[in-house]
Amino acid sequence: MLSATPLAGIPEIRPGDDLGWLIVAALAAQSDQAALTQGDVLVIAHKVISKAEGRIRALADVQPGERAITLAAKLDKDPLHVQVILDECQEVLRADHGILICVTRHGFVCANAGVDASTVPGTGSVVLLPADPDASARNLRRRIAELAGHAPGIVITDSFGRAWRNGQSDIAIGCAGVHPLDDWRGLPDAAGRELRATVIAVADQLAGAADLARAKDRSQPVVLIRGAERYVTADDGPGAAALIRPKSQDLFR
Amino acid sequence: MLSATPLAGIPEIRPGDDLGWLIVAALAAQSDQAALTQGDVLVIAHKVISKAEGRIRALADVQPGERAITLAAKLDKDPLHVQVILDECQEVLRADHGILICVTRHGFVCANAGVDASTVPGTGSVVLLPADPDASARNLRRRIAELAGHAPGIVITDSFGRAWRNGQSDIAIGCAGVHPLDDWRGLPDAAGRELRATVIAVADQLAGAADLARAKDRSQPVVLIRGAERYVTADDGPGAAALIRPKSQDLFR
Repeated sequence: MLSATPLAGIPEIRPGDDLGWLIVAALAAQSDQAALTQGDVLVIAHKVISKAEGRIRALADVQPGERAITLAAKLDKDPLHVQVILDECQEVLRADHGILICVTRHGFVCANAGVDASTVPGTGSVVLLPADPDASARNLRRRIAELAGHAPGIVITDSFGRAWRNGQSDIAIGCAGVHPLDDWRGLPDAAGRELRATVIAVADQLAGAADLARAKDRSQPVVLIRGAERYVTADDGPGAAALIRPKSQDLFR
Repeated sequence: MLSATPLAGIPEIRPGDDLGWLIVAALAAQSDQAALTQGDVLVIAHKVISKAEGRIRALADVQPGERAITLAAKLDKDPLHVQVILDECQEVLRADHGILICVTRHGFVCANAGVDASTVPGTGSVVLLPADPDASARNLRRRIAELAGHAPGIVITDSFGRAWRNGQSDIAIGCAGVHPLDDWRGLPDAAGRELRATVIAVADQLAGAADLARAKDRSQPVVLIRGAERYVTADDGPGAAALIRPKSQDLFR
């Protein structure tokens, strides 16, 4: 059985907060769950990571350039917000229907380069994606291992839209200690035939499973997944970077 | 807590099999789970649905046309297999890198129009997607309600590749009795701000969560999800058709 349980009691995060410590404390206070054990996975909405790392920009400090002003007019968006998005982009793939689809500096293809459309309450600031989400995952894994005696698998998530399908799904933008992909190619299926072209995006499915377990208002950024031991690794592994399809193999850019 | 438990004991399915009866029997035999209760969701790999519905084609009966022969040569595929794919397609979006990305008759964008690359053992036949997966879900839901006294949510899945990301993820091709999409637009988030542009692809995330719980060789086509009551509906609902983005709103066709 696979289970996904949101942790209660993670406070509003501020730059510099020790998120690892807060997570371990929240786990200890969760009376219905045993302590962290080998094979556990923690799935974490990137916003708390970004905030702890100070990946926040005050819109008041942003000077919109010509391109941001033009795009903002075309898309009916705030030019300050568009400038922040452009600063997080390596490429704009589409700017249409009021939507800006970007390739982020990390290589993720998503709306608004992952810059949150809503501001941090009372600050006029927007939250960016972590600069290096795989490094964030590795650091958090190390910190939690230090405090809890076990290194959990870590998946850092964001909600991405998808080509061709309505609705957003949570996917992995960073991970450590879990297989981002589970490669079944060459292995026999249940009928003993070789499975072809089957590589499962495990970290993305962990992200989606955790999202379903969260409260509707998303006040639960951290979700504990149990029963996924077979996807957990002893080392940090390649991270969610392995989930990015290289441009040369991409039929839809 | 959300949980996903694969059902043991679903046999190899043949055309005409009463899948609802087999699932209810498998549930009854599952000693570690209580009987089906209100709010349960059953996530089912489409292959068993397709087989029960006879959605199988013998390659020996296929006559490849000129387009199939040309595409097969270009992509290094079997012309018989390509002809079956073309018969399931309304449009070929890409034919490159050995990959055929199609719009199926239902409107799904996926590789090979969902036609399984491997044949059914000993038959030389390939398995197609159900003709109307939402109808399949509704029928199965009705049959299980008849036998078990409760109508579960039903999600029928396939593994789809994604634009821009490596690896496949299970998604919903049919559903009944669950919200395919959970629309949070206009609702306040945890900080009391209005959430914008947030529509969660619940049925797809249920599909992905179930896939993680399955045995690696995928001999477990049916997964029971508990703790997802808030996504379960009294009526059949709009089905997975609601997850298909209309072509007019699609920036990547």
